[in-house]
Amino acid sequence: MEQLVKFESEFSIDCVIFGFEAGELKILLIERNDEPFKDWPALPGNLVENDEGIEEAAERILHELTGLDDLHMEQFHTFGDVHRHPRGRIITVAYYALIRIDSQKELKPGQLAKKALWHTVNDLPKLAFDHTEIFKTGFNKLRRRLSYQPIAYELLPEKFTLTQLQQLYEAILNKKLDKRNFRKKMLSYGFLKELDEKQKNVSFRAAKLYKFDRRKYSKIFQNELGVDV
Amino acid sequence: MEQLVKFESEFSIDCVIFGFEAGELKILLIERNDEPFKDWPALPGNLVENDEGIEEAAERILHELTGLDDLHMEQFHTFGDVHRHPRGRIITVAYYALIRIDSQKELKPGQLAKKALWHTVNDLPKLAFDHTEIFKTGFNKLRRRLSYQPIAYELLPEKFTLTQLQQLYEAILNKKLDKRNFRKKMLSYGFLKELDEKQKNVSFRAAKLYKFDRRKYSKIFQNELGVDV
Repeated sequence: MEQLVKFESEFSIDCVIFGFEAGELKILLIERNDEPFKDWPALPGNLVENDEGIEEAAERILHELTGLDDLHMEQFHTFGDVHRHPRGRIITVAYYALIRIDSQKELKPGQLAKKALWHTVNDLPKLAFDHTEIFKTGFNKLRRRLSYQPIAYELLPEKFTLTQLQQLYEAILNKKLDKRNFRKKMLSYGFLKELDEKQKNVSFRAAKLYKFDRRKYSKIFQNELGVDV
Repeated sequence: MEQLVKFESEFSIDCVIFGFEAGELKILLIERNDEPFKDWPALPGNLVENDEGIEEAAERILHELTGLDDLHMEQFHTFGDVHRHPRGRIITVAYYALIRIDSQKELKPGQLAKKALWHTVNDLPKLAFDHTEIFKTGFNKLRRRLSYQPIAYELLPEKFTLTQLQQLYEAILNKKLDKRNFRKKMLSYGFLKELDEKQKNVSFRAAKLYKFDRRKYSKIFQNELGVDV
């Protein structure tokens, strides 16, 4: 019997999910449950079904492995090194998302994952496959976006202190910033709204809380470089 | 005989190559030479070999179909709609590049392409596969980048008039801009260097020529939004 020539892309999805907690930038990792990378830490990822759209697959896979839902995930790069997968050349489409880590969102690892956990980006262990490279590419993208999109406010709680904001910038840029200059600069833009509220659960010197004013931000930056000349 | 289970991603590359010529924004199209889209206009694209890296494949494919070489191509999105390809689900990794169209660079269509030609983006014909969607996604990306990266100067000749610059902005943003405001704004940044030279081959009122000063640009914009606070 003649064999049908089938053309189908076998490929996978991997997710770099950034979160910010206790002054640290983190990403979501799983511990894999199957060979050849059993017990290794890895980005949440898996193969896409043949009849499944890419975005749809990204949501399903993240949900199955970590329990997370309703994230705004964005594709950022496709990795296809010939030797990236031990079973043969399988390309992977990488997505990233930013979320506010809060205690309500409990992680629920699925069948394929033994664990799902937040890990600080500073001392990541070696990851399965080429996941370290995928993470680095995603992290660079995040860093570049920080200069032209208000992404910091997707990671911070709705009300935050200037210290939290600075910690987040420092974590993403991977360097210490001068406190006085940072505050002066951030407040000078006019898109941070000072609230009539202070931090709670702090023993002394509770700091002022701020909110991000998205409308003001758009007004200030939409005209840069002639997009709306 | 037992069949080996092979895991290999069959996938393709498609290229959106932008150029600017005679006041118009253009993209590079081929006319396809094979079924099921024989004679259709399409983006330059083809299947990737199993032992070939993605970037490498993108360069090879563009060269084979159009004769172009040495472009700085950048991946921008992977398309994987289940029904995007009539032969089965084949995902495609899309790249884009910006080039200066000049008469020296002659297009040389390869075997798979009957023709290779520049086509203005304003009245594109219906393209093969999902190439119209790929083009639109690439065009939107270009438009967004215009607001935070000096991409206009990769499309213009090294020395250009303010009219050319405005035509390019108008083509990318798809709207008319006020001449006086546009010039005032563009010159106010300080990264356009006025030359002691005027347009040649113009019968009267030759306009002044300008150059883009990349160093000044970086100096002005690197500090925006705290990347270097």
